[in-house]
Amino acid sequence: MRSNTDVTTLLARFLVESRWEDIPTPVRHEAKRTLLNSLGAALGGCADPAIGKALAVLRQFSGRPEATVIGRAERLDALSAAFVNAAAANVFDFDDTHLPTVIHPGAPVVPAVLALAERQRVSGGDLLHALILGVEVECRVGNSVTPYHYRRGWHITSTCGVIGAAAAAGKLLALDLQRTIWALGLAANQACGLVESLGSMAKSVSVGNAPRNGIVAALLAQQGFTAAPQTLEGPRGFAYVMGHKPDLAAIDNGLGTTWESARNTYKPYPCGIVLHPVIDALLEVRAKNGLRAENIERVTVRGHPLLRERTDRPRPRSGREAQVSLQHTAGVCFIHGAAGLAQYTDASTTEPAVIALGDKVEVQDDPAVPVEAAVVTLRTTDGRTLTHEIRHALGSLGRPMSDGEIEAKVRDLAAFGGSGCDIDRLIDAVWDLERLDDAAAVVQLTGARPKE
Amino acid sequence: MRSNTDVTTLLARFLVESRWEDIPTPVRHEAKRTLLNSLGAALGGCADPAIGKALAVLRQFSGRPEATVIGRAERLDALSAAFVNAAAANVFDFDDTHLPTVIHPGAPVVPAVLALAERQRVSGGDLLHALILGVEVECRVGNSVTPYHYRRGWHITSTCGVIGAAAAAGKLLALDLQRTIWALGLAANQACGLVESLGSMAKSVSVGNAPRNGIVAALLAQQGFTAAPQTLEGPRGFAYVMGHKPDLAAIDNGLGTTWESARNTYKPYPCGIVLHPVIDALLEVRAKNGLRAENIERVTVRGHPLLRERTDRPRPRSGREAQVSLQHTAGVCFIHGAAGLAQYTDASTTEPAVIALGDKVEVQDDPAVPVEAAVVTLRTTDGRTLTHEIRHALGSLGRPMSDGEIEAKVRDLAAFGGSGCDIDRLIDAVWDLERLDDAAAVVQLTGARPKE
Repeated sequence: MRSNTDVTTLLARFLVESRWEDIPTPVRHEAKRTLLNSLGAALGGCADPAIGKALAVLRQFSGRPEATVIGRAERLDALSAAFVNAAAANVFDFDDTHLPTVIHPGAPVVPAVLALAERQRVSGGDLLHALILGVEVECRVGNSVTPYHYRRGWHITSTCGVIGAAAAAGKLLALDLQRTIWALGLAANQACGLVESLGSMAKSVSVGNAPRNGIVAALLAQQGFTAAPQTLEGPRGFAYVMGHKPDLAAIDNGLGTTWESARNTYKPYPCGIVLHPVIDALLEVRAKNGLRAENIERVTVRGHPLLRERTDRPRPRSGREAQVSLQHTAGVCFIHGAAGLAQYTDASTTEPAVIALGDKVEVQDDPAVPVEAAVVTLRTTDGRTLTHEIRHALGSLGRPMSDGEIEAKVRDLAAFGGSGCDIDRLIDAVWDLERLDDAAAVVQLTGARPKE
Repeated sequence: MRSNTDVTTLLARFLVESRWEDIPTPVRHEAKRTLLNSLGAALGGCADPAIGKALAVLRQFSGRPEATVIGRAERLDALSAAFVNAAAANVFDFDDTHLPTVIHPGAPVVPAVLALAERQRVSGGDLLHALILGVEVECRVGNSVTPYHYRRGWHITSTCGVIGAAAAAGKLLALDLQRTIWALGLAANQACGLVESLGSMAKSVSVGNAPRNGIVAALLAQQGFTAAPQTLEGPRGFAYVMGHKPDLAAIDNGLGTTWESARNTYKPYPCGIVLHPVIDALLEVRAKNGLRAENIERVTVRGHPLLRERTDRPRPRSGREAQVSLQHTAGVCFIHGAAGLAQYTDASTTEPAVIALGDKVEVQDDPAVPVEAAVVTLRTTDGRTLTHEIRHALGSLGRPMSDGEIEAKVRDLAAFGGSGCDIDRLIDAVWDLERLDDAAAVVQLTGARPKE
C-alpha cells in the first residue's frame, strides 16, 4: 500500500495517452454491453415519478434543447439531460454492477458521453473509448476506498461516478495533461451522495449530479479553471477524506493492461442481487417439474447469511420493499413464472396468490453457500421433495448474461417504459457503434417516438 | 450529547413555523450587514478570472436570463446566477466568518435568496427572513460536526452551505413541514467540497454549487421529490458520515432564542484573519507617529503561535501567498498605509520597497497572546522603540466592524471590481430593505452599470 503516489497525474496521463487501438476487443465489446444495458435501464425508468418531478424542475432552467432525454419527447440542454438520463438509468437499481465496489458504472458515465455526442462530432469508436476510460477511472478510484467508503455511508456510484464522468468528458474534449488533472480534481471536489438516501428519491439527485458535474468539471478545466494537483491523493483530498487507509496503488496498478471496465456485470432481475440465485433456482425447478403454485406446500431456501439479513421480509407493502423480499420474490416466481419489472410494482405486492405463496417460504443460513449461490428445497402437496441448487446466479461473473439475454432484458425494459422508442434499431446501432461516424444518431434513437 | 434526535424534523419545523415578527431587531440588523458584506465581496470578486471562466461555461447552458449576475451585465437563469454569485462572493476569502465553525455564511445563502427574489415576488422582509433562517441552519449544522469536519478535510462553507441555502429557498417557497424535511435531505445528500481544493479555483465550484443545489433541493421537494426523513442525523446521514461523534444537540438547542446568524463577523482586510490585529497595530502606530518606511529599522511582532505558523512567509510570490504573509503585510502597511485588495495583488509582491520592509520583520511566539490580539514593537532608525498592542482586532466579535466601516469596505470592493454598479443606491437599499415590497429591485442594483 503506497500513500504518496501522484495518482491524479497518473490517471490523467493514462487518459490523455490512451488510444482506441490500445483497447482490447473484449473490453470494447463489454463497453457495448454496458452501454446497451444502461440505455435499457433508462428506457425502463424514464416514466418513473422521480424522473417526471426532476424534469418538472430542470426544464424551468434548461438552455438550448440540444440533448436527448432518454425515452422522452422533450429535449434539454446537455447538463440537464445528463442529470435526468443518469437518474432514469439507476432509478430501479436494475443497472450494471462492478461487484468489487458495488458501483453501478454505467449510470454516471453513459449519460456524460451521450450528452457530449450531441454537442460535438463524436464517432462511435470515440464514444466507446471515452465510456471505457470513464468506467475504468470510476471503478479504480472506487477500488482505492473500498470497502470503508460505502460502509461509512458514501453512495459510491455517486461519489466515484462524478470522477468517472469527468474522465470520460475530458477524453471527448481532448483535454491535455494539465487540464485533465484539473478536470479530475474539479470532479473529486464535487463527490457526494449518502447511503442514507437510498430508498428515497434523493438517491437520484446525487446520481444525476454525477454526469452533470463531471461534464462541468471537464468544461471548466478546458477553460483553464484550476484544481489542486493531488485532489485524489492529497492529505485533504478525496481518498483520505472519504476513505480510510486508502489503497492508492489500486488506482494505477495494471492501468492500461487489466481492465476493471471488463468486469462489469448486469442484473437479470430488478431486485436485490442476493435474490438472483434464488430466482434462477425457483424458475428452473418450476419449469422442469411443471409445478404450479397449488402444488407447493413449503419452500425452503438455504443461502449465505446475507440472503436472510437483507431479504427475509414477509408481506412487503411496496414495490421497493418487494425488491428486497425473499417471500415476495418466491411468490411471483411461482405465480407469474417471472421476476421482471412487472413483478416488483406496488400493485404486485397486493396479489393474494403471491402473498399466500410467500407465506410458505422459510430461509436457512449457511455460511458455506457463496452469495451468488442458493439451494432451494420444495415440498409438494403430493409429498415430493425437490431440491435445486444454483452455483452461479445468472448475471454473476461466473455466469454472465449473454448478449442475447441483455438484448431481451433491454427489450423488456423498453416495453415497460412505454416510450415507443425503436428498440430494434437501437440495439442494432449499439452493436455496430464502432462503424458509426457520428454517435449522435444512436443517442437520438433513445428519445420517445410519438405514438400514432 | 444526544445521538438519536429527529433534528432534520426539528429544523424543518423551526423553518416552517418561524415568523418575521419572531426575529429580534439585532438579528434583523445583522442580516443586513451580512447581505451588504456579501454583495460587496461579490462586487469585488466579479471580475476575477475564475468567475469569467465559470461564466464562459455556464452561459452555454443557461435558460431564461431571469437573474442578475452581480457586477456583470449579462443575466443567467436563477441556478447559474446563484452559482456565479456565490463563487464571486467567496473568491477572495474576503467574506464573512462564523468564527466557531469558520463557515463563510453569506456566500452560499445570499445568492440563493437573491435568485429566487427575481423569480417570484419576495418582499424585503421575506428576503431577510429567509437569509436569517438559512444562515442559522447552516451554522447550527456546522456546529454539530465542528471541529472534526473541517480538520478531516471538508470545506465547511460548501458542505453546510448547501443545507443553509436549501433552508432559505424552502422558506421563500413556503414549503410545508414534509417538503422542508425533504429539501434539507436533498441538500445534505449533495454536501461536498474538499479542503484540498483551497488555494485553487476548484474551491469556487463547491461554493458555487451550494446555492445552486440548495435551490434545486427546495424546488424538487416542492414537486414531491422525497428524501430520507433523517438525512442529517441517520446512521448513514450527514452528521455521522461527515462528522465524528456529532453533537446533534447543537443543532436544536436554543433554536429560535439564540441566534448563530447574529454572531457573524466581517473581515476588514482581505488576508488571513490572524494577520488582522497586526495590521491594526501597524496602521495605528504608523499614523500616530507619522512614520514612513525609511524610519523603520526593525519590526518585531509578538503573537499567538498560530500567527507564526500560518504567516511567517518572507517574499511571497503571488497575491494568494501574500494573503498569508506577515512580511508582505507589514510591508504594504508601511509603504501603502493600507491593507486592501490592491495590496494583495500579484503585482504588489514585486514592489522593492514592500520586499525591503518585509525583510526587516521578525515574529515571536507568545501563547499568552490571544489569536485576535498582537503586540508590535518598532525600532526606528533614529533609535526610538515604539510598542503598540491590539487586544481585539477590528472585525472580531470583541470589536465588530461598525456599519460605516462595512459600508466603506463595500465601497472599496465595488470600486476594485469595476462594475460601475451604483453602490450608494445599493447601500441605501440594503439598510432600507424591510420597507421594500419587492426585493428584486435591490438585486437588480447589483448588476453592472454600462460605462458611459
